[in-house]
Amino acid sequence: MSASPLLAQLIEALRCLPGVGSKSAQRMAYHLLERDREGGLRLSAALAEAVEKVGHCESCRDFSETPVCAICASASRERGLLCAIESPADRLAIETATGYRGLYFVLQGRLSPLDGIGPKELGLDKLAARLAQGEVRELIIATNPTVEGEATAHYLAQLARQAGVTPSRLAHGLPLGGELEYVDRGTLAHAFGSRSEIPS
Amino acid sequence: MSASPLLAQLIEALRCLPGVGSKSAQRMAYHLLERDREGGLRLSAALAEAVEKVGHCESCRDFSETPVCAICASASRERGLLCAIESPADRLAIETATGYRGLYFVLQGRLSPLDGIGPKELGLDKLAARLAQGEVRELIIATNPTVEGEATAHYLAQLARQAGVTPSRLAHGLPLGGELEYVDRGTLAHAFGSRSEIPS
Ligand SMILES: [Zn+2]
Ligand SMILES: [Zn+2]
Repeated sequence: MSASPLLAQLIEALRCLPGVGSKSAQRMAYHLLERDREGGLRLSAALAEAVEKVGHCESCRDFSETPVCAICASASRERGLLCAIESPADRLAIETATGYRGLYFVLQGRLSPLDGIGPKELGLDKLAARLAQGEVRELIIATNPTVEGEATAHYLAQLARQAGVTPSRLAHGLPLGGELEYVDRGTLAHAFGSRSEIPS
Repeated sequence: MSASPLLAQLIEALRCLPGVGSKSAQRMAYHLLERDREGGLRLSAALAEAVEKVGHCESCRDFSETPVCAICASASRERGLLCAIESPADRLAIETATGYRGLYFVLQGRLSPLDGIGPKELGLDKLAARLAQGEVRELIIATNPTVEGEATAHYLAQLARQAGVTPSRLAHGLPLGGELEYVDRGTLAHAFGSRSEIPS
């Protein structure tokens, strides 16, 4: 029994955060109420605003609060290059580490039939339509070097070839089984620079 | 650069949570926006409500949304026993593990001069006044068995003796250097049951 039902409610609500069990939720709640009520209010407002207003870019599927995100809307990006990534974090990593000036397509996941994640969940119908338009000449496939990431890359390469688009994959150098967003900048920049066309 | 300023704002706001760095804040934000917007809204509301309404019990300093908490207000608790603890989590642990039926006093910390936490920050003036009233006959000192916890216990024992109240300390059995709230129930119950008076 907690001394305060509202405190108990807060602890329970904090458990919606990934990786937060009941002990850490308790510590977080105590910390906010004891030492950082202002931070708690700021977080409350930021959550409500983001949930209400942040949707997905119509063009790349990245998070965006406008119909089309700033990168997709930019006139200075090279529209013949499209880079397919699993998550928005990967776009941040590539933007920070490399000089890439093309566009992105965010899968928001990877093919994983056992979890019910198929081509439709990754927006691949949308990607196919985009490749068919003829503007894209190279699809840079930057899924993670994991088993599911490789399977997704294989599928995307087929999709590209069907549309007459050249598929390419980041150079080896990425640690096997690792997550792209945790790779150091140098390795990522090198791998990005020495990407190679995927042979048929 | 994030694709969405509101997303960036949410990631920044999540970092007010203890133990949450920029990588975990990012993962939390993506998770909420991609898979659990309802949980995000619930958390937003719970935060706002708790920050606004949860204060401290006038009597024991535990978190409470009423002026006096349910335990302090209860007619069935033994008012001659007062147990001093560092945090509300310790009260929960003791209530769950032991049959203790007395009252509590929550220090919300421990003496730590280097961090600017002295007797005043722990409400010890309030505790001294309470001990002087004569209702309390035993002060059970259940601070953590750490260096600072022991120093705090020593100070509390003096305070009790000055008021003619018997100070007692939980029996050894608690692992040295450990945190009371992580002790298993059996150990805690045993230590609580075999507490001993602190000799002058
Ligand atoms: Zn976009
Ligand atoms: Zn109370």
